Amino acid sequence: MQLAATIAERIRGVTGIPRTALHEPALNGNELAYVTECIQTGWVSSVGSFVDRFERDLADYVGARYAVVVSNGTSGLQVALMLAGVTAGDEVLVPTLSFVATANAVSHCGAHPHFVDSSYATLGLDVDALDAYLRETARVSDGVCVNRRTGRRIAAVVPMHTFGHPVDMPALVELAQRYAIEIVEDAAESLGSYIADRHTGGFGRCAMLSFNGNKVVTTGGGGAIITDDTELAKRAKHLTTTAKLPHAWEYSHDEVAFNYRMPNLNAALGCAQLERLDAFLAAKRELANRYQQAFADLPQVELFTERAGTRANYWLQTLLLKPGHVDERDAVLRATNDAGQMTRPVWKLLHTLPMYAHCEAMPTPVAADLARRIINIPSGPQLVAGAL
Amino acid sequence: MQLAATIAERIRGVTGIPRTALHEPALNGNELAYVTECIQTGWVSSVGSFVDRFERDLADYVGARYAVVVSNGTSGLQVALMLAGVTAGDEVLVPTLSFVATANAVSHCGAHPHFVDSSYATLGLDVDALDAYLRETARVSDGVCVNRRTGRRIAAVVPMHTFGHPVDMPALVELAQRYAIEIVEDAAESLGSYIADRHTGGFGRCAMLSFNGNKVVTTGGGGAIITDDTELAKRAKHLTTTAKLPHAWEYSHDEVAFNYRMPNLNAALGCAQLERLDAFLAAKRELANRYQQAFADLPQVELFTERAGTRANYWLQTLLLKPGHVDERDAVLRATNDAGQMTRPVWKLLHTLPMYAHCEAMPTPVAADLARRIINIPSGPQLVAGAL
Ligand SMILES: Cc1ncc(COP(=O)(O)O)c(C=O)c1O
Ligand SMILES: Cc1ncc(COP(=O)(O)O)c(C=O)c1O
Repeated sequence: MQLAATIAERIRGVTGIPRTALHEPALNGNELAYVTECIQTGWVSSVGSFVDRFERDLADYVGARYAVVVSNGTSGLQVALMLAGVTAGDEVLVPTLSFVATANAVSHCGAHPHFVDSSYATLGLDVDALDAYLRETARVSDGVCVNRRTGRRIAAVVPMHTFGHPVDMPALVELAQRYAIEIVEDAAESLGSYIADRHTGGFGRCAMLSFNGNKVVTTGGGGAIITDDTELAKRAKHLTTTAKLPHAWEYSHDEVAFNYRMPNLNAALGCAQLERLDAFLAAKRELANRYQQAFADLPQVELFTERAGTRANYWLQTLLLKPGHVDERDAVLRATNDAGQMTRPVWKLLHTLPMYAHCEAMPTPVAADLARRIINIPSGPQLVAGAL
Repeated sequence: MQLAATIAERIRGVTGIPRTALHEPALNGNELAYVTECIQTGWVSSVGSFVDRFERDLADYVGARYAVVVSNGTSGLQVALMLAGVTAGDEVLVPTLSFVATANAVSHCGAHPHFVDSSYATLGLDVDALDAYLRETARVSDGVCVNRRTGRRIAAVVPMHTFGHPVDMPALVELAQRYAIEIVEDAAESLGSYIADRHTGGFGRCAMLSFNGNKVVTTGGGGAIITDDTELAKRAKHLTTTAKLPHAWEYSHDEVAFNYRMPNLNAALGCAQLERLDAFLAAKRELANRYQQAFADLPQVELFTERAGTRANYWLQTLLLKPGHVDERDAVLRATNDAGQMTRPVWKLLHTLPMYAHCEAMPTPVAADLARRIINIPSGPQLVAGAL
């Protein structure tokens, strides 16, 4: 049997169902009860008890002092970058292997993404390669990191925990300190992922989470900014709620700001989802085990599993074609999707997209190789029957 | 009895209830049924049948060819301005008497708000005064309107239909043509408001609607871009959904874009709300009648009512203190709020806020006068018992 057909068959064996999306929300906990409460009390909009509770529950879960919920992850990352001091004209280091929103959030600050290669070990940005690259490319003077070529400040770096697998954050923290660069984590994909016992998103000035419909936990659409810094948390709330000054009736605002609020209706969904996060994570881990067994005897592929010292949330299960089988990627994608088992390749590398083609980029051979080899396969927690 | 106490008493007489907010959502139609359907089918996120239906229903209601729903009105206005060709460094004419989001959306395009005075007749921007001002301030050369003082292009004008009372759009359309300026309507407050039989939002290149919790119709948080132009509608969808190119599995994007999607969960609320809009409007009109009667014998105040040739949605009921009674505004605000009948003054004039104080502005005596005299009083449709 051809590799593509074999893989489709093995996936079908694990999922046990004739048709499955890549990641579907599981909404059979308290979602309906909480949303009903919003509608019956009239509290559906921009303030409400579920907003407050979701912010507390999230902060507790990730071990941060504060969480500020927002309309989505993209908006959250834009504001997180602003909080970290990124301003128009700056450069921000971003993995080229990421969803386009990581770079868009930089652009929305008027800053320029500067693309970085990835690591085979983590699928996230390669700290060693970045270190070697910055040695050539950047200089630090008066506590400011400057790109020698462009003369622009390199203000921040955005590690993204690909598919829930953590970047080597301790090494990145050391490097960022050495280069006087702020860290803002794109933890959109890594709710429930840890390095030792520290949750991802807890290593920089602030971080972003996403609750889009395809994420581990969904609010329909939504995101959060997490931080331990009281001032930053206040400012995050202020900037995402039109910078209105508190007053019984007066409408006064003290800076250009955004409406990036998460409605109470969506936060209600989030509260219910968060109650079930540990069950989702257990199911996704079991799914990884099952895939690993299912592919154990196929030498052409391997399942990407968590690195020692980390705990992955297995947001998207990740199959890697071994070198020599890269040419079969599209056949595998076709066979699996035709068989009703939704799969997809990783994103096109960001520095190859037309609007980012002119940006600064280090050589990205590993990202290019990974982009040819990654296939994400069905990952929803409900694929483990009886787990939820 | 003092004026403030009298007004509080009269409002209480009309609302008939001891405590009321300024505008509360009425969610006792199909809201719960539709939201339940989202949760039971799993379609809560960025695509879904309620998104499609809400876009069709909205377009039908306002008589536009297209509606593109977005995360809120502020984001919608930003994108509407981009669609109309506003780019960084341009100036955009904006009423100083508006909610801060009108100016923020201009800033989010990298453009500069340029503030305009208001009209006693409409509470919206004064077309005649603007005409006289532009005669002094602007010149048109090669089809481009330029501010003589700053040298910047004046790219667009944003009429805002204050509290649902339409700006004199036929006159503005004529003026905008003469000055080669695009019109982008901020129709956040005017769903259900018409000039003759044309719905507000239908006079410019495109317009924005808001479905914030305090609006006539709510989606929790949300907005829409409406337009008759097929190309603009496509581009609105593209820009608000990460500019992803259609493909079975590939993630490719062709420009810097946004995640400004409205989740299906919120669109479900919108569909149910829109079914009831005509009932809401009838109740709000009846409420206006009742207030008018209740204040008929008070010479110190008048209720602002719809102008001949227009139909107002009476989003926020508006009391005007007559000249000579302006000093009693804060006493009225205190007495009414203390009595559980929520009232508020209009927004602080935008050109007086710190972040907009340095912007271009024409003299704004009428807006300044109105800002001292306007008091919004409880306006929810459910205040007319039995109407819904
Ligand atoms: C890596 C990454 N960054 C950013 C985002 C943007 O989040 P959102 O879709 O909530 O705007 C996502 C998810 O969509 C993501 O996967
Ligand atoms: C005049 C005006 N413009 C813009 C907005 C912004 O809309 P949203 O709150 O949906 O972002 C509003 C309402 O809040 C408004 O009243």
